[in-house]
Amino acid sequence: METKVTSDKKEVIISIDRPTVIIGERINPTGRKKLTEVLKAGDLEMVRKEALIQVEAGADIIDCNVNAPGVNDVEILPKAIKVIQEAVDAPMCLDSPNKDALEAALKVYKGKPLVNSVSGEEASLKRMLPLVKEYDCAVIGLVQDDEGIPKNAERRVAIAHKIVERAEKAGIKRENIVIDVLTFAIGAEPKSGLDVLEAIRRIREELGVNMTMGASNISFGMPDRPIINNAWAAAVIVAGATALITDAAKIRPAILATDLILGRDRFARRFIEDHRKREQAAQQTK
Amino acid sequence: METKVTSDKKEVIISIDRPTVIIGERINPTGRKKLTEVLKAGDLEMVRKEALIQVEAGADIIDCNVNAPGVNDVEILPKAIKVIQEAVDAPMCLDSPNKDALEAALKVYKGKPLVNSVSGEEASLKRMLPLVKEYDCAVIGLVQDDEGIPKNAERRVAIAHKIVERAEKAGIKRENIVIDVLTFAIGAEPKSGLDVLEAIRRIREELGVNMTMGASNISFGMPDRPIINNAWAAAVIVAGATALITDAAKIRPAILATDLILGRDRFARRFIEDHRKREQAAQQTK
Repeated sequence: METKVTSDKKEVIISIDRPTVIIGERINPTGRKKLTEVLKAGDLEMVRKEALIQVEAGADIIDCNVNAPGVNDVEILPKAIKVIQEAVDAPMCLDSPNKDALEAALKVYKGKPLVNSVSGEEASLKRMLPLVKEYDCAVIGLVQDDEGIPKNAERRVAIAHKIVERAEKAGIKRENIVIDVLTFAIGAEPKSGLDVLEAIRRIREELGVNMTMGASNISFGMPDRPIINNAWAAAVIVAGATALITDAAKIRPAILATDLILGRDRFARRFIEDHRKREQAAQQTK
Repeated sequence: METKVTSDKKEVIISIDRPTVIIGERINPTGRKKLTEVLKAGDLEMVRKEALIQVEAGADIIDCNVNAPGVNDVEILPKAIKVIQEAVDAPMCLDSPNKDALEAALKVYKGKPLVNSVSGEEASLKRMLPLVKEYDCAVIGLVQDDEGIPKNAERRVAIAHKIVERAEKAGIKRENIVIDVLTFAIGAEPKSGLDVLEAIRRIREELGVNMTMGASNISFGMPDRPIINNAWAAAVIVAGATALITDAAKIRPAILATDLILGRDRFARRFIEDHRKREQAAQQTK
């Protein structure tokens, strides 16, 4: 199954037969004081720079989330999207819990974006699915419902089924649905890694949809987070995740290595190119 | 299924429910000129030190291979084993293509070792299985036969079945068989990673045996080998490998991270202990 996401200049395809798609997560004010401040002031220069940096680091799609207390989402999100689309060719993931902000963003976006996100909660399904259908975009579906984030594989799979059914009923093609399986921190929920891996395998088998997830939640609260995140990236890609929401600069080498061992990198072209780039960068900082 | 390997002082259990077992690979003269020279001279001090270093680095089982041109295997292997068993508590993997050397080694070994290896080749099965039965040890079975190393998952699985059948017929319990799935360099065989992962999953499902493999062959000839090896370790452990033959100092953090995300490291005790050890080591070298 192929999920197409486009800008006016570029197309990205999420598919099990292709290299893993990296959705750059850095334009998000959560936990970033400086970014929150400039967004409040309506200053989008930092957003522009973050888009450029992430594309340079290998992000395929740029997520844009400007949601923070004191930021007028409905006004700032479309502006941020214009700034980013002028700066980079990469398609985007429009990310907001606010339907009005998403609609304003969809109106100015050039191409077919990903929308982040709908969930299995009734209110979310009712609010968001018509919008996704109207703008004919792709959408990320989070496996949580009115009872919260599920603590086992079974319910994760059930919510994924629910989202796909409801979306298809609303006229959205399955290829336009990307399921986010949602991970707990392994320090808090030692069995959640196994649950998520089982859920990914089952969703792949039963629904065939593309899947994404945050690549670093798993290691929250642990030391040596990159070691855990890299192992996790390999594990979820092998299980069937086809996109990761992450900081491209940090985790891309591990993702490229995983694509390589899965035979998705012909002649190791992408891996070796990235190796050379890192070597050059290391020499320049000497 | 639990594969027990013991010394006179320590027991190691290989099992899907437990942390991945690391078989330290460094006592092997292949490609190591200095080690070859001292072995030829019958000097076992370097072997002793390598055993100590590997246990310190977290190896659970110490592989001992002294096979090199000019080294009298039958004489040196038992001597090396005595030296290693005096130096460390860890159980051992006795590693030789020479049956006489293995038999001499089995006579002096204290405990129940792993023997590396039998293969699906007729001559190997006939030569080695009676010895494994006689000494009641555990054995590594390589998935290659008289036609060589298989280039697809199907034949890997078929050879694993053959080895298990023949071993059981010879009176060896299945729990004492550890299958080595054998990996090609991904640079030479781009699809072999996928084949090996599929073979691991099927052998796990169909035979239930423990599985091991060299953790670094996959990256032969590539740059940034550790990045590839770490991703590969995560991938094969998630698929069902329960032991890895490797340099513990290099790849253990990635293995511990994978055990952690698979819920095999209660309270993250092993991962955090290893983190502290690495931190201390880093401070000492400052």
